[in-house]
Amino acid sequence: MSINPVTLAQALIAAPSITPATGAVFDVLEAALTPLGFTVERFIDGIEPDGPVENLLAVRKGKGPKHFGFAGHLDVVPPGVGWTGDAFAPEIRGDLLYGRGAVDMKGSIAAFVAAAAETPAEAGTISLIITGDEEGPAIFGTRALMEHMDARGIRPDMIVVGEPTSVNRLGDMVKIGRRGSVNIWIDVPGTQGHVAYPHLADNPIPKLVKILAAIDAVVLDEGNDWFQPSNIEFTDIEVGNGATNVIPASARARLSIRFNDAHKGADLVAMIERIAHDIEPNAKILGKISGEAFLTPPGDLSELVAEAIQAETDIAPDMSTTGGTSDARFLHALCPVVEFGLTNATMHKLDEAVTVADLHTLAAIYRGILVRAFA
Amino acid sequence: MSINPVTLAQALIAAPSITPATGAVFDVLEAALTPLGFTVERFIDGIEPDGPVENLLAVRKGKGPKHFGFAGHLDVVPPGVGWTGDAFAPEIRGDLLYGRGAVDMKGSIAAFVAAAAETPAEAGTISLIITGDEEGPAIFGTRALMEHMDARGIRPDMIVVGEPTSVNRLGDMVKIGRRGSVNIWIDVPGTQGHVAYPHLADNPIPKLVKILAAIDAVVLDEGNDWFQPSNIEFTDIEVGNGATNVIPASARARLSIRFNDAHKGADLVAMIERIAHDIEPNAKILGKISGEAFLTPPGDLSELVAEAIQAETDIAPDMSTTGGTSDARFLHALCPVVEFGLTNATMHKLDEAVTVADLHTLAAIYRGILVRAFA
Repeated sequence: MSINPVTLAQALIAAPSITPATGAVFDVLEAALTPLGFTVERFIDGIEPDGPVENLLAVRKGKGPKHFGFAGHLDVVPPGVGWTGDAFAPEIRGDLLYGRGAVDMKGSIAAFVAAAAETPAEAGTISLIITGDEEGPAIFGTRALMEHMDARGIRPDMIVVGEPTSVNRLGDMVKIGRRGSVNIWIDVPGTQGHVAYPHLADNPIPKLVKILAAIDAVVLDEGNDWFQPSNIEFTDIEVGNGATNVIPASARARLSIRFNDAHKGADLVAMIERIAHDIEPNAKILGKISGEAFLTPPGDLSELVAEAIQAETDIAPDMSTTGGTSDARFLHALCPVVEFGLTNATMHKLDEAVTVADLHTLAAIYRGILVRAFA
Repeated sequence: MSINPVTLAQALIAAPSITPATGAVFDVLEAALTPLGFTVERFIDGIEPDGPVENLLAVRKGKGPKHFGFAGHLDVVPPGVGWTGDAFAPEIRGDLLYGRGAVDMKGSIAAFVAAAAETPAEAGTISLIITGDEEGPAIFGTRALMEHMDARGIRPDMIVVGEPTSVNRLGDMVKIGRRGSVNIWIDVPGTQGHVAYPHLADNPIPKLVKILAAIDAVVLDEGNDWFQPSNIEFTDIEVGNGATNVIPASARARLSIRFNDAHKGADLVAMIERIAHDIEPNAKILGKISGEAFLTPPGDLSELVAEAIQAETDIAPDMSTTGGTSDARFLHALCPVVEFGLTNATMHKLDEAVTVADLHTLAAIYRGILVRAFA
């Protein structure tokens, strides 16, 4: 049987699914997958505010030895105010299909289902690893799916994440890794007092300034073949002292490090702590690692994806590690992972839209990827 | 006629007068001064929230050539919660008279009125320069009184401000000057962006850190015979960015400089602006000068005050310029000014109190000052 990716994308968009997502949008996907021979499992995890989150694992066993995984998410970011039409009433105007999730990433899921429908069941095993919380805290999302897969012995040999990686034209960029991300909070204690009597107080601000100046002087690395240089950005300073004649009792700063595969998040937190403690031994450091850096070095998977792209679009994609994080940060623990999907110009914006032609082309590319993966 | 300073202090305390003050408390003072031969003028200025403020100018012309001014305030800071008794129901328990304003500075005003009552009218001219807003913004207070005096050609030859300058024992400290005070705001602009794409943004925080580090390295002076070193204190930093993945659009800091007579407030603002503009030409600097530094160099006035103190207490007072600002910052433009009054241990605190004995001793000291001033 054949599936029209545009029709399926419209059906998925028409089921609103702001993060965290459950329910109807998963019903739509399950109804599309079951006739194709997939065994669909769904489970709901978590409580408010980070849940409940629905996850879906669909597996179609094949005769071939290879197991191909496709990962993605059915949740979307809130539409915001100011759409030309209704964000959850998909509408084709001219060449474009409008709706929240059109490119990020219901359109991509629809394209992959269409590709799977064209792929003979016996060619190899296909899994769809689909969460309802990628845009949110992702606590009960892909990680829960991975535990679920582990408990059942389900482990793909390669995974493509369908995030919208294309920049100007469909096919111009594949992501073969992502930088890691860690947020670090620095809290410098002091002793409150009157500015006229500084000897009776201990101002935390000059210490915080010294700590931040020392951190600002750090060069983490110069980048490498696949990654841009790691980068430290200060994102906030907060003292919260409304009184002009008071020396404050504490001062806080927050920074974000996006780091390449030369670093581990915990090592970076420890480095910041060393710098801070050299200046103020009582400074408190809190680090929260959003994801470690990872790289799927160019090889079989990225080559077959590039070949499939070039066959349909005549474009040789850039192999990139730029941009934010995605659920690939978790999935790379299982097997080689690359990310490829629609153009991302309108993602998270008003009037998110995909060209109808791109949906068909992406389905063809995914089809080509499956053919090459199972060859 | 004779006035008991304790009785008058009780009457003044019993008229609540939280800043800005008007009304009953001025009635009490006027009723005490008129029988002593003072001509009392009262006027109300300003609107909410910095007013209305009542001011009182009382002048008793003498035959002697000298004109002695006593300056003070009838407003008090709010009592706060937790007094043993009622802050506005003066009560003598043991040696102490309790009540808001007991030391700062209704007790001092009462002591001076008692001293004036003992001073022959012909000895010299006495003015009382009394405001209802010293503890507040002081916009419609002593400065308005000075304009009023200027319009009438009233200009003392010397002024004693009755602020509670004594530290451990009545008489141990006279203030012969005060440091100046200026608050400066620094606002560093940037360009907001996503932390994953720092090349598209311009983070203001590292620039602010560089500016603050440069300011922190400044040594304004080493102090001099009469002043401690000038001091810069950072009092706040504010970015206000709740999002961990956002580079903020601007960053702000605030600092307070307490400076001695080697500096002018405007020069210090200009210096901070130069430092900031060297690092970020678009930084915005706002300075608000609360008061310039001033010094009444030790001389006739401080000597006669010290002699009067020593005669009553056997203490040789320290001549100091420490502490916060007072209305002496304005009055020093008229003539030599020193400050002397009760012990300040309980000022602005719960259960503010003065020893009954100190009120009588202070009246005797003020009497001795008048005798010496008119000699």
